[in-house]
Amino acid sequence: MAVSIPHAVEPDMALAASLFDSLNRATRREFGVVRDSYGDGEQAAHDLVRAAALRLGLEVALDAIGNLYMTLPGIDRDTPRILMGSHLDSTPHGGNFDGAAGVVAGLAALSGLREAGIVPRCDLCVMAIRAEESSWFDVSYLGSGGAFGLLDPACLAVRRSSDGCTLEDALLARGFEPGAIRERRRLLDPVRIRAYLELHIEQGPTLVERNLPAAVVTAVRGCRRFRHARCHGRYGHSGTVPRAYRQDAVAATVALLHHLETVWLRYEREGADLVFTAGELGTDPKLHAPSKVAGETRFVLDIRSVSEAIMAEFVAEAHAAAARIGAERRVRFDLGGTSDSPAPDMDTRLRAALLSRLDRPFEMASGAGHDAATFAKIGIPTAMIFVRNDHGSHNPDESMELADFAVATRALLGLLLDSPI
Amino acid sequence: MAVSIPHAVEPDMALAASLFDSLNRATRREFGVVRDSYGDGEQAAHDLVRAAALRLGLEVALDAIGNLYMTLPGIDRDTPRILMGSHLDSTPHGGNFDGAAGVVAGLAALSGLREAGIVPRCDLCVMAIRAEESSWFDVSYLGSGGAFGLLDPACLAVRRSSDGCTLEDALLARGFEPGAIRERRRLLDPVRIRAYLELHIEQGPTLVERNLPAAVVTAVRGCRRFRHARCHGRYGHSGTVPRAYRQDAVAATVALLHHLETVWLRYEREGADLVFTAGELGTDPKLHAPSKVAGETRFVLDIRSVSEAIMAEFVAEAHAAAARIGAERRVRFDLGGTSDSPAPDMDTRLRAALLSRLDRPFEMASGAGHDAATFAKIGIPTAMIFVRNDHGSHNPDESMELADFAVATRALLGLLLDSPI
Repeated sequence: MAVSIPHAVEPDMALAASLFDSLNRATRREFGVVRDSYGDGEQAAHDLVRAAALRLGLEVALDAIGNLYMTLPGIDRDTPRILMGSHLDSTPHGGNFDGAAGVVAGLAALSGLREAGIVPRCDLCVMAIRAEESSWFDVSYLGSGGAFGLLDPACLAVRRSSDGCTLEDALLARGFEPGAIRERRRLLDPVRIRAYLELHIEQGPTLVERNLPAAVVTAVRGCRRFRHARCHGRYGHSGTVPRAYRQDAVAATVALLHHLETVWLRYEREGADLVFTAGELGTDPKLHAPSKVAGETRFVLDIRSVSEAIMAEFVAEAHAAAARIGAERRVRFDLGGTSDSPAPDMDTRLRAALLSRLDRPFEMASGAGHDAATFAKIGIPTAMIFVRNDHGSHNPDESMELADFAVATRALLGLLLDSPI
Repeated sequence: MAVSIPHAVEPDMALAASLFDSLNRATRREFGVVRDSYGDGEQAAHDLVRAAALRLGLEVALDAIGNLYMTLPGIDRDTPRILMGSHLDSTPHGGNFDGAAGVVAGLAALSGLREAGIVPRCDLCVMAIRAEESSWFDVSYLGSGGAFGLLDPACLAVRRSSDGCTLEDALLARGFEPGAIRERRRLLDPVRIRAYLELHIEQGPTLVERNLPAAVVTAVRGCRRFRHARCHGRYGHSGTVPRAYRQDAVAATVALLHHLETVWLRYEREGADLVFTAGELGTDPKLHAPSKVAGETRFVLDIRSVSEAIMAEFVAEAHAAAARIGAERRVRFDLGGTSDSPAPDMDTRLRAALLSRLDRPFEMASGAGHDAATFAKIGIPTAMIFVRNDHGSHNPDESMELADFAVATRALLGLLLDSPI
């Protein structure tokens, strides 16, 4: 794509190191980094990234809901552009790399191109996306979903977990336009985007276990989540109510979770892609007691797979088991509805192109959702590359080596230079 | 025992009805009655009962920690007396009868004796006991244990769940003496007590299910309680961490509870007396999330039996299973120690005497602990009688019929009149 291709164009690793360092210093709190969606933490990250883009001489723009676009202009400015990016918010006690690495990679790649004096054929734009994490507003992909007018306007009334501020007020406080979400306005035109590329840390242990620096993503696992499941039993005295008369919400919930684990094991043995998690579970602190049979539990069931069919089967199994166990144990399960994220495939051509740029090519599914899913869902050719990261993500111990980051960023840059796009 | 025994001495049911009514009115709040240990609710109940005793012409006295003694003097005041009673505190959202019924029964019996002009051989004393429920100070039997100097003085620093007030300050605020507990002072001399009799509502459904008004208690189930059990795993992303790498505290806790339920079922099939409950269970609301594998759970295991041996076996099984499942699932269980209440037997002679006074004699174990356990433990001949009660106890729906209460109180009065004591 370049007018002239020099022998070695390298990502600007000095810029990357300096940005990771300043992001860390600006947003680290006592326990992890805090980049709250539309809050001071996320804004501090946006300010740092924007300043770096201006120093690089990139064109800088914001959309109506605060997504930041940093563009290296191409020769033909009318041809669809290539977007690279990720989000700048973190979970409440998060790490320095989840999200930020994708934005930093884009800037390091564009800086490398500028350094080499390369003018790309089309615009290359780094998008710093707002509010990807659902831990703040209980909605995933606010920034990328909002950019395509995909959000349910009801989300404007959702309150931020940290301070109770509604999304509407949080947008207004930063000078953005809730109206864009209310009117489902499209801030990005899909036909004007040639491809979306996202670098992200791997959030599981696979690359660490396999001793590989990077991997190309085959597909993003979708998710079916029973976010507000409950079991309604009846409180009773732990010493005086015989088992036959109990309506024990804990015992019934244990039976349900135990059963679903055995179903998961069966899928695993068959080689099917599935993960199942109950990450929130609890009796009611206001009504439970050491000497009481529990009358209620609340819990979350999180079901993920690259296969829509497997997720649908597991959801059906959860409903059937809840009905059966509820009847057996004289309790009533109310699983509620599921909130669904689809399982979009990544673009085959882009995957192959990225894979060819890895010395040790490896592909894997993404267990977590990403903004890339939004782009893929509306038909934009999309690819992701993972960087090895120890200790998982969404915690202060995220640990990504710059050398691994360089391997993945170099693959991205190679794709831009020798583009199949 | 009486100088002359008239043909029909009856408990004073008008007094009983009026006391239940005034107790209910004085301490009922929006959701249930609230008679907080050493708080305003318990004190209101003591004031009502004391006033009724004075109207009956009984001798009234307090001990150093606020237990109330209401005595009908006997002919021989030097011979050991008979105590009847129960506690006047309730659980936080409790019912009107748990505890209070035993005190009201004692007063109704003494009123019946006075009415009939009977002077008993020995002193008959109704003891209104303080602070039996552990829901306020996380310690059971404060009143009866303290009366015999059995409490660990460290309990003075325990804070009341409702308002954070220490037991020491709560005692001082009512004009009582923390020093009695600190010095383990004996406020009651066991050799001066001939017997202890306690009427209590049944806290389970057995008498309702069997359509019986009352039952004599064979033994009080003891309790082994892991009050502060935990499972330490590791937080991880629910989509990205494969099962083999998870350290899932919820899944491990589910496996432990499921296993212990199967052990309980085995004991049940063998006809052994045992109940097992996990009534409090939860992930950490500050750190859990729908998209996280849980890194910690906290839970309570409550194990009860009339057999010390079975409780010891089950506790050992819990430790062994926690070690095994912890190793299998890469988590660490920390069950902590157990808080133990013994399983004392009731006095055989008193049991038989009470049983002979029931038209439809029925005996059963008490699943819950009672102050009677304290008296039995230190060797005082002790008996209990249960009254049918619908909807369980420790909740606003406790439902005891006065006719059933009269059956049980009549049996108590019969024992006093025609005493084997």
